[in-house]
Amino acid sequence: MTKIVIIGGVAGGASAAARARRLDESSEIIMFERGAYISFANCGLPYHIAGDISERDDLLLQTPDGFSTRFNVDVRVLQEVTAIDSEQKQVSIKNLSNGETYIESYDKLVLSPGAAPIMPPLPGLDLPHIYSLRNLPDMDRIIDDMQRHKPQHATVVGGGFIGLEMVEALTERGIKTTLLELGPQVMAPVDAEMAKPLHQELEGHGVDLRLNTALEAVERASSAKRKLKLNLSNNKTLTTDMLIMAIGVKPETSLAKAAGLELGNLGGIKVNQEMQSSDPDIYAVGDAVEDLHWVSQQSAFIPLAGPANRQGRLAANNIFGAKQAYKQTQGTAICKVFDLAVASTGLNEKQLSAQGISYEKVYVHSASHASYYPGAESVNLKLLFCPETGTILGAQAVGKDGIDKRIDVLAVAQRAGLKVEDLQDLELCYAPPFGSAKDPVNQIGFVASNVRNGSHKICHSHEIDNLSDSQMILDVRNPQELLNNGAIPGALNIPLDQLRDRLDELPKDMEILIYCFVGLRGYVAYRQLANQGFKAKNLSGGYKTWLNMR
Amino acid sequence: MTKIVIIGGVAGGASAAARARRLDESSEIIMFERGAYISFANCGLPYHIAGDISERDDLLLQTPDGFSTRFNVDVRVLQEVTAIDSEQKQVSIKNLSNGETYIESYDKLVLSPGAAPIMPPLPGLDLPHIYSLRNLPDMDRIIDDMQRHKPQHATVVGGGFIGLEMVEALTERGIKTTLLELGPQVMAPVDAEMAKPLHQELEGHGVDLRLNTALEAVERASSAKRKLKLNLSNNKTLTTDMLIMAIGVKPETSLAKAAGLELGNLGGIKVNQEMQSSDPDIYAVGDAVEDLHWVSQQSAFIPLAGPANRQGRLAANNIFGAKQAYKQTQGTAICKVFDLAVASTGLNEKQLSAQGISYEKVYVHSASHASYYPGAESVNLKLLFCPETGTILGAQAVGKDGIDKRIDVLAVAQRAGLKVEDLQDLELCYAPPFGSAKDPVNQIGFVASNVRNGSHKICHSHEIDNLSDSQMILDVRNPQELLNNGAIPGALNIPLDQLRDRLDELPKDMEILIYCFVGLRGYVAYRQLANQGFKAKNLSGGYKTWLNMR
Ligand SMILES: Cc1cc2nc3c(=O)[nH]c(=O)nc-3n(C[C@H](O)[C@H](O)[C@H](O)COP(=O)(O)OP(=O)(O)OC[C@H]3O[C@@H](n4cnc5c(N)ncnc54)[C@H](O)[C@@H]3O)c2cc1C
Ligand SMILES: Cc1cc2nc3c(=O)[nH]c(=O)nc-3n(C[C@H](O)[C@H](O)[C@H](O)COP(=O)(O)OP(=O)(O)OC[C@H]3O[C@@H](n4cnc5c(N)ncnc54)[C@H](O)[C@@H]3O)c2cc1C
Ligand SMILES: CC(C)(COP(=O)(O)OP(=O)(O)OC[C@H]1O[C@@H](n2cnc3c(N)ncnc32)[C@H](O)[C@@H]1OP(=O)(O)O)[C@@H](O)C(=O)NCCC(=O)NCCS
Ligand SMILES: CC(C)(COP(=O)(O)OP(=O)(O)OC[C@H]1O[C@@H](n2cnc3c(N)ncnc32)[C@H](O)[C@@H]1OP(=O)(O)O)[C@@H](O)C(=O)NCCC(=O)NCCS
Repeated sequence: MTKIVIIGGVAGGASAAARARRLDESSEIIMFERGAYISFANCGLPYHIAGDISERDDLLLQTPDGFSTRFNVDVRVLQEVTAIDSEQKQVSIKNLSNGETYIESYDKLVLSPGAAPIMPPLPGLDLPHIYSLRNLPDMDRIIDDMQRHKPQHATVVGGGFIGLEMVEALTERGIKTTLLELGPQVMAPVDAEMAKPLHQELEGHGVDLRLNTALEAVERASSAKRKLKLNLSNNKTLTTDMLIMAIGVKPETSLAKAAGLELGNLGGIKVNQEMQSSDPDIYAVGDAVEDLHWVSQQSAFIPLAGPANRQGRLAANNIFGAKQAYKQTQGTAICKVFDLAVASTGLNEKQLSAQGISYEKVYVHSASHASYYPGAESVNLKLLFCPETGTILGAQAVGKDGIDKRIDVLAVAQRAGLKVEDLQDLELCYAPPFGSAKDPVNQIGFVASNVRNGSHKICHSHEIDNLSDSQMILDVRNPQELLNNGAIPGALNIPLDQLRDRLDELPKDMEILIYCFVGLRGYVAYRQLANQGFKAKNLSGGYKTWLNMR
Repeated sequence: MTKIVIIGGVAGGASAAARARRLDESSEIIMFERGAYISFANCGLPYHIAGDISERDDLLLQTPDGFSTRFNVDVRVLQEVTAIDSEQKQVSIKNLSNGETYIESYDKLVLSPGAAPIMPPLPGLDLPHIYSLRNLPDMDRIIDDMQRHKPQHATVVGGGFIGLEMVEALTERGIKTTLLELGPQVMAPVDAEMAKPLHQELEGHGVDLRLNTALEAVERASSAKRKLKLNLSNNKTLTTDMLIMAIGVKPETSLAKAAGLELGNLGGIKVNQEMQSSDPDIYAVGDAVEDLHWVSQQSAFIPLAGPANRQGRLAANNIFGAKQAYKQTQGTAICKVFDLAVASTGLNEKQLSAQGISYEKVYVHSASHASYYPGAESVNLKLLFCPETGTILGAQAVGKDGIDKRIDVLAVAQRAGLKVEDLQDLELCYAPPFGSAKDPVNQIGFVASNVRNGSHKICHSHEIDNLSDSQMILDVRNPQELLNNGAIPGALNIPLDQLRDRLDELPKDMEILIYCFVGLRGYVAYRQLANQGFKAKNLSGGYKTWLNMR
């Protein structure tokens, strides 16, 4: 009989416990959770605050009793593990209901303590009306504040997943919200031009978005007692009724560290492929660990529910001798921002540059389903790949419809080791309400393959914005489009369908940088010019991507 | 300068023409189309009839003039190619506007003549108010009939993609519709239990669904002049105002046959991997060809727009020497049936059985996104795989939300050669509005992997329905569920959460066939019993799939 002790009763911990029981009926399994709840939907918290999920109970996927009955697991809530003695193979516990402490032995220990919201050492963060969001009590406090004090204005610090979800939730609740983001863009997992539509979406919903702006200190506003005065990095101040800190999370490693377990470069618990910490009898999973990134093979800290669940299951398998390797994390993630979805997988341009990985990028803006069928929306899709091998390095998408599907497809393609050329042949569901005969994923496969085989020379905004003397810009859109949507300064306009007859207006000794609205007509023009001996390049993603680069 | 002649100006033909021009500016390209339109959205026709696509012009993705200007292609509409002389490398053309005939030479010929609706040799199919739907004139005739004669009742023959889309379109137009289907189910690409929800959906929308019923003859109804009397295989008759024949399509091979090109087993034009017919200067693509199925490597006729578009593009590539192989067709397809979507990829059980391929099947009914977030719908997912190797043989899904996404993911996994074990590790987009920490695809991967490694013994409805003397049925749902939803006759009911305490009610010498509503609790019960030394199996898909088998 194996005695398994699990620390943490949510995504990773509960998954490990349930799986362990399914694998073995005779083991003793004890699951410690310092909070009052287990198996709750952290990811649903913002949506209950928003009111989308009306019942708080819907967030509780299991109760301690329910779990214990179903899986014969000794679930001990409100009990905090305070120390691990890996020599003696035992843990110390403090019962938070009565303050008692005791010791429990283990054969195998699973650590899934999660991560904690980062609270920077700024003056005033201990004032009232300041919150972070990690668990149900956090959520309850925010809702309680909203009900009691009816805040008119809220400020969210941090434009990541949780920050954006909170901005939306507060706005939906009719609270005017300011979002402070230190960086030049929200949603760091995607690149700047893919975040641009999010900025517009936020502002379109009345959010006061302040990029490149950090919170420096909080004070009580002198005017109204209940208000907070925020001092910002740009020397401005802001008065607000409620402050949500959402600048990120850090792995909960205090126990592990104290127990002498090895930590990784990024401060997470170091694990091997089998999710064992430096002590082979102690497994660690979820937000508390760091792992190698599937694409870069560099250390990565990717605190997401999917990996936590799968790692918890895998740890249980390996406790019973499976010797399975966790297949690393690609970082596939998605976030709803009002009517938009933004999603990504793999590495982004910022990460690729930082890691010195050579890449090329292409964009398409294709319809989410047949454009003639009602409800089609533009899928703004970006693909990053290795120009030498065609390996898919990353993908990003933003839009109103079909974003999750395209990133899922690309995540599978990436994981399966498909090359950009293979994307051309993917056979995806097509009927007008669902897709197109050539799905956006096929289209981006065509584009990337053409770039790779040299039949489509592309350029990017940077080159257009820094024209050399031997370059010129050609806009192949129709004049009406220029009037309606504007144009890149200095471009010559010859509509695509007149190009063949007006080739004599173009110089053979200059490089012609072509663009249209999304890149498709620009490419068709490029092929004409290239086939006629002109030197040319096409702006990938066209004017639409160029605008998003501003 | 290559002279390329293309027969057919829609999916395959127009794609080949456009791609050929992009590859080479100097070729002469002539595209013959016997109809008045090119590049139209066949797939959109039912939705214009339904009124969902309000503008007829939206179905015209390109006009002959527009195409000709953009791609410098000599587009000749209302010109039918009547013969191919492959010796002389020339085609004969009849100009349908003036009856003139003439000859055109070619260096390379691309055949993309499509397929034609099958019209069985039944008496009376030449009467008025009888239609099939392939192109714009067909659609116009149906709409004209609807406007002029205000049919009260329509009959659609054939429950495939086009038949179902027409049933929905007519119903949406307020016309009471009967669907006659020769077989025991609609939507042949999926298996019977996956079609069952479609039957309910059709009937729920007031469709008069008649399965196992063939049309045998049509007469003028004696009573009312404008009505048709349908004689059915079950000796019944049916009076209707309009009849739509949609029993399938057959490849247009008359030209090819007359030219001596080889046809395949299934009657389509035979092509090699490069889409060359038996004459290497004649390429053939789209609905007119037959190909090897990607999974079975047997001849297959899969008349879909995606393959037609990609084959047309590939033929152009190969004309210019690319020597690329078409990567065969998996048959990924989807159809909207009122509020449901049904989709599939690969082979179904009927095909696997017919081809003697060994397979196992598993089902999950998981939520399309986090069940606590509004709008989650059940994804009824079926996976067929090779029990020996874990190879994915096929997948089917039906439901209201997220069906296209799951089949797309599985289609990519299948094409990439992933095994069912790999589905466990797929990292898909998760936030509550879009998915689950364990996506239905992960879940079906868990289930299939457990089946493969022997840790989850399953059975199917057939076994439950044909119990041996040494088998018993155990229902592990809660009593209230049995009251609400019914139960399998003869089953013993012990709710899962009481099972550990009531093991003594179960015999050790019988095989216990366990079931719950969808299969998950049944599996948890199975693990308990198996771990306690009972002989047991779990009904895959649970009561829900069992009901769909009726
Ligand atoms: C608001 C919010 C929204 C999110 N949205 C998404 C999303 O949309 N998609 C997504 O993929 N991920 C999302 N996440 C992240 C996801 O919830 C986490 O990745 C996942 O829960 C991590 O699982 P875990 O088991 O590592 O940690 P947790 O689920 O946090 O569980 C750790 C548990 O361990 C307990 N614990 C810690 N230390 C001890 C101790 N010493 N003794 C006893 N108990 C202890 C804690 O109380 C905690 O309950 C979201 C998170 C939050 C907070
Ligand atoms: C109502 C309907 C709905 C559909 N829905 C879907 C769907 O949702 N998803 C999907 O994937 N597929 C769908 N399809 C199928 C899809 O449209 C076809 O697979 C695709 O159009 C095949 O392309 P093709 O080029 O082979 O043939 P077509 O697109 O049919 O083009 C062939 C053309 O060749 C012309 N032609 C034939 N012979 C000659 C000749 N001798 N001389 C000159 N011209 C000639 C014909 O007039 C025709 O216009 C649907 C089809 C229909 C009819
Ligand atoms: C609720 C919770 C305890 C469930 O854990 P679980 O039992 O391992 O997971 P599920 O209920 O999804 O069931 C998965 C198991 O059922 C099996 N299964 C799923 N569908 C099945 C079906 N239709 N038929 C048979 N088996 C099925 C799977 O094979 C898997 O079993 P395995 O791991 O032994 O292979 C855990 O997921 C949890 O605590 N979740 C909430 C916390 C969380 O994830 N938060 C972050 C996201 S909001
Ligand atoms: C309209 C039609 C002629 C267009 O053919 P097409 O020009 O080959 O196809 P698209 O407009 O989708 O463009 C695809 C091309 O643009 C390129 N492209 C797409 N998006 C791009 C972007 N954003 N930037 C640069 N290039 C892009 C692709 O690389 C591809 O070019 P390639 O084949 O040379 O690699 C043809 O699809 C057609 O006739 N369709 C209607 C008929 C039909 O399909 N019916 C059945 C379904 S309803």
